[in-house]
Amino acid sequence: MPQVDDGPESGETLRRKLDPELPLGVFDSGLGGLTVVREIAAALPRERIIYLGDTARVPYGARSPATVVRYAQGCARALVREGIKALVVACNTVSAVALDVLRAELDLPVLGVIEPGARAAVAASARLRIGVLGTVGTISSGAYPRAVLTVSTRAEVSAHAAPLLVPLAEEGWLDGEVPRLAVRRYLEPLAAAEVDVVVLGCTHYPLLRATIEHEAREMIGAHVRVVDSAHATASELAALLHDRGLLATREGPGEIDLLVTDRPRSFGEMTARFLGGPAREVRVIDL
Amino acid sequence: MPQVDDGPESGETLRRKLDPELPLGVFDSGLGGLTVVREIAAALPRERIIYLGDTARVPYGARSPATVVRYAQGCARALVREGIKALVVACNTVSAVALDVLRAELDLPVLGVIEPGARAAVAASARLRIGVLGTVGTISSGAYPRAVLTVSTRAEVSAHAAPLLVPLAEEGWLDGEVPRLAVRRYLEPLAAAEVDVVVLGCTHYPLLRATIEHEAREMIGAHVRVVDSAHATASELAALLHDRGLLATREGPGEIDLLVTDRPRSFGEMTARFLGGPAREVRVIDL
Repeated sequence: MPQVDDGPESGETLRRKLDPELPLGVFDSGLGGLTVVREIAAALPRERIIYLGDTARVPYGARSPATVVRYAQGCARALVREGIKALVVACNTVSAVALDVLRAELDLPVLGVIEPGARAAVAASARLRIGVLGTVGTISSGAYPRAVLTVSTRAEVSAHAAPLLVPLAEEGWLDGEVPRLAVRRYLEPLAAAEVDVVVLGCTHYPLLRATIEHEAREMIGAHVRVVDSAHATASELAALLHDRGLLATREGPGEIDLLVTDRPRSFGEMTARFLGGPAREVRVIDL
Repeated sequence: MPQVDDGPESGETLRRKLDPELPLGVFDSGLGGLTVVREIAAALPRERIIYLGDTARVPYGARSPATVVRYAQGCARALVREGIKALVVACNTVSAVALDVLRAELDLPVLGVIEPGARAAVAASARLRIGVLGTVGTISSGAYPRAVLTVSTRAEVSAHAAPLLVPLAEEGWLDGEVPRLAVRRYLEPLAAAEVDVVVLGCTHYPLLRATIEHEAREMIGAHVRVVDSAHATASELAALLHDRGLLATREGPGEIDLLVTDRPRSFGEMTARFLGGPAREVRVIDL
């Protein structure tokens, strides 16, 4: 039987040619995803990044899956209209319930934060006992256990919601007694499950990393490792852009454009806290 | 000059005749307003109540005033379509920024929670030094100081945002070290201002009342009074319905219908916590 040439039916040739000089699109329900932007900017300093924070509808964490999918589609389409070469879903809740829909709908690479986080967790865990903290939405979706099991069927996952950590991070209560006691309460079931890795399954949690790391060491032991999905996602994004020939080549440092759907009252302070550096200019868009 | 009869130009005769057997409409950004419903049901046990929680867009507390006004109009119109005789805005953030717009737009009595709370605070304060805790939106609107000053120009108001109290109430962490330490931190500026009344300026806070009361007594003194806007609002609503001849007269206990714009994952548990009694049936509507 004759070999058929790769015609226009082939997925590879149908794939739109993407311009490596286009920016990366990153979105989150609010400003938490800026911790992912920070890691991307560190790993890929030449890339331009357009960040969209859906601050008018934050937080997604407690919403129904159907609502999260609808909101995520709105965010993704708005970024595609801006012209991007790849999309990073810098939100664990959206990555948990809407990634497949976005991948089916969009003709460009789409990366979530859960799969990279799960892979990094398995790599870091000697005993394959992995603890995850996240929002109610992320945890009740079961996305982390599922993602871990696709990497290692022998791994055991203890995943628990920690709803108070987002408001603590937003309030800037990053150390001291209140965050310490809240973190300890949320780590209790993970300590009981004898995990040796704690995954920060929410983009806000890196702000509380020092407290989480300190308490986890005290409650679980000095061997415990804290894994940050944001860092793992930036590494996988760099590899993906390289593999597909999509790395920006122009000289000079990249830029970060900030879009929001509502200007929160504490916006400047929050961007400084999440992204580092001074408060930034921002464009408000309607979805 | 001859006396002109009250013609159709008179505001009083132009006012639509409202049916006392219609239900009361109550809305909030989420489920916190159920603490107000609870007080209304206690004060007016014969009234039917339709409650709308805009759970798809909760929380309003950190959103811009323009967005809050737009959301509030959507909620109010949805309740008016259901057929109501009066509207209670059971949300401090909306009462702070959108009450005038709603009153101008709607042809029925509209009651917020801030004015009743401010009147109750002045009545309870011997030294006319009043402390208020609320969301960022409520506090930065300046609505409580303004409302207090319309009651007493001699009163001094110390109003401070306490963003962590809403997630604490929703998480059900109502006593113990974490809420105790968070409450103490938020009460510090009120204690320094030597207030003798603390207003619970958010519908979630009545759940933390015991902790707030206990810590306020310890930090400020046994004379301090905690004023709950929800309770004050229910009392003023009862007086308003009586004055306008709008009290329901039919026999038997009233009912509470719950509408939400998204079904939050922890809905049943939350209604039980806020409203008391068992979890309730609910209707999901689109605004």
